Amino acid sequence: MPHTKATHQQTKLLNRDLVLKMIFEHDEISRAEVARLTKLTRATVSDMVASLIGEGLVEEIGFGSSIGGKAPILLRLVADSRYLIGLNLGQDKFIGAVVNLRGEIKETIEMPVDGIDGEEALQLVYHILDQLTGKGWQPLVGIGIGTPGLVNTQEGVVVNAVNLDWRDLPLASLLEARYNLPVSILNDSQATAIGEFVYGRTLSSDGSLIVITARHGIGAGILISGRLFQGDGGGAGEIGHVVVQENGSLCRCGKHGCLETLASASAVVRRARALAGDYPGSSLAASSSAITLDTVRQAWDAQDPLAEQVVLDSARYLGASLAGLISVLNIHRIVITGDMECFGKRWLQAVGESMTAHALARMAQETILEFGTLNFKACILGASAYMLLESYSLLFLNPAE
Amino acid sequence: MPHTKATHQQTKLLNRDLVLKMIFEHDEISRAEVARLTKLTRATVSDMVASLIGEGLVEEIGFGSSIGGKAPILLRLVADSRYLIGLNLGQDKFIGAVVNLRGEIKETIEMPVDGIDGEEALQLVYHILDQLTGKGWQPLVGIGIGTPGLVNTQEGVVVNAVNLDWRDLPLASLLEARYNLPVSILNDSQATAIGEFVYGRTLSSDGSLIVITARHGIGAGILISGRLFQGDGGGAGEIGHVVVQENGSLCRCGKHGCLETLASASAVVRRARALAGDYPGSSLAASSSAITLDTVRQAWDAQDPLAEQVVLDSARYLGASLAGLISVLNIHRIVITGDMECFGKRWLQAVGESMTAHALARMAQETILEFGTLNFKACILGASAYMLLESYSLLFLNPAE
Repeated sequence: MPHTKATHQQTKLLNRDLVLKMIFEHDEISRAEVARLTKLTRATVSDMVASLIGEGLVEEIGFGSSIGGKAPILLRLVADSRYLIGLNLGQDKFIGAVVNLRGEIKETIEMPVDGIDGEEALQLVYHILDQLTGKGWQPLVGIGIGTPGLVNTQEGVVVNAVNLDWRDLPLASLLEARYNLPVSILNDSQATAIGEFVYGRTLSSDGSLIVITARHGIGAGILISGRLFQGDGGGAGEIGHVVVQENGSLCRCGKHGCLETLASASAVVRRARALAGDYPGSSLAASSSAITLDTVRQAWDAQDPLAEQVVLDSARYLGASLAGLISVLNIHRIVITGDMECFGKRWLQAVGESMTAHALARMAQETILEFGTLNFKACILGASAYMLLESYSLLFLNPAE
Repeated sequence: MPHTKATHQQTKLLNRDLVLKMIFEHDEISRAEVARLTKLTRATVSDMVASLIGEGLVEEIGFGSSIGGKAPILLRLVADSRYLIGLNLGQDKFIGAVVNLRGEIKETIEMPVDGIDGEEALQLVYHILDQLTGKGWQPLVGIGIGTPGLVNTQEGVVVNAVNLDWRDLPLASLLEARYNLPVSILNDSQATAIGEFVYGRTLSSDGSLIVITARHGIGAGILISGRLFQGDGGGAGEIGHVVVQENGSLCRCGKHGCLETLASASAVVRRARALAGDYPGSSLAASSSAITLDTVRQAWDAQDPLAEQVVLDSARYLGASLAGLISVLNIHRIVITGDMECFGKRWLQAVGESMTAHALARMAQETILEFGTLNFKACILGASAYMLLESYSLLFLNPAE
């Protein structure tokens, strides 16, 4: 139920958004089909489409196949009519990219982080954005940032990002002042979820989706009915720091036995190193300090016993956490992305088996677990696309029209 | 973003809903205040209020205090202008009630279940509703049912209620045909959550809330931004059957170590009986088969060691599950209701301590845990109120107006 009144002007903007959304969501579509899907009149759709063509957002691309009458003219989004910037503040490097409206990356800049934080890390963000905004991709309509830590997206504030030593940093207003563009700030797991949702094409735009990012840490991003769900405090999906093993290993958050200490990519490497002495027959045992994610993966592919233990443990604990997640949300589709994808289908199957063992049979059965399709690009694309998910209004260059 | 167009007729209905919502949410309110809160014009508000007064839903109750100008006329919902029926299909008894628009129960009928199920249980529902609909409370505008098990609320179907031996029972259409009234079917934990949300007055109508029902079983109901969240499959909040203790006791769902086997009221009694032999000094040990929830509560109040163990275990496991719940949802307010309330503040505090020990410190700190205010009435009231939460349209007796 709406909490403020609907006016005619708002109705017009909503209808225009709605038409654009339909064109956005289809590779090609006719006016008649837009009218059918939106329940708007053909006349209204024609008006809106004329306006979208005038703004350069939509183009006619020829005739579709006819089902009896006149063949319809097909419409398509002009992918390069607007550009967005997405930035992923990763653990090891910051990656920024210019992205078009179809999620195609036009230009990328990567900078190693090398342990810098605080003001230096902020300068690195400026450095990347200065370059990306100066490359001549026009019109550039917005910047989206995916950062680790807790974010207040409404206020555009990084509340707490431990690795970057940022607390209550008003990043959106700093960047808006510097670049004169709308800026959105998101938690990186949430941005990744949006990326997989919008560009991974895993389901319809009105659907719900959980995306688990298992990398240095573990986090979930939750989309409910096509919208990012952040909870009251912005931290929805912070499942990496739930204690799943009493008296387990010390976590970077200060507690013991968090999911991250067992199921993240870092945890798998750390545990393989720690347990190497117990597996003298393991191919990894010879030089435990040289163990990396890649050597664990090779050993896992060869069914090495040490790799089996640490990788299957990660699957077991992650699956048990997913059992809790699906019991709370009962969302049918879960995408897993991040470095842990390297362990492949056998690992994913073990995650699913553990989820099933820990949840109501019916709930587990109706849940589909799959890998993401975008890998590291998901965070960048999702950060750039967040504002589109909220509203297409930033694509309208002259909203007073 | 809306997916169908807004028309003028819809705008009018939405505005009327909006005005009624404001009056519903306040004990008394002036037209000027309604206009301020809804951002509608005074003229529109006056029109809508005139119409609501004409329908008997709203009345003028005299002058409020002035802040300078003319004292405003105050409006109030006419609590007895419409009636709803709520029915709770509990484990031991079915309770039905006629409820007015303020959640005041006007008439109650209770029937013991005595182990009946299937068609007999359905006949018992008819028996109660036949009586309640025949008592002359008019106009009666809807019936809401809270049932254990999995429900498809959109279709009005009880998908699976094990205790009642109902599978794919189209309860809503059966009752709609029999009583010629709109009927909604909800899972009982979800209905309880709506009851606490709408009539427990724990927070604003736009807020989010988690309600945990800990009784024979354990379930959660989740409200997000004032709407019931059910997930893709209708089972959102089914946390009672997540395995929290590997190789634990057999659960009625067929798995071992579910939350219900440790933290439900039934589990506390069962565990006290099973462990009585280990506590010869316990006041409960003399006659373990005579242990009831009430004797455990008395022993807990006296800090009896057996009671301490089983009650604190329930708090520990429930708290750990809540840690998962808040990490997924980050909803700040959790209400706990049901028989476990009998263990009082000390138990609630132990639940909170366990939640804090198992979750990110910040997330736990910002979460408020409290007991419900309605007890068993919450399910009945919530079942009756669900349709109001969705829309006030069923209160408009002549929607063509």
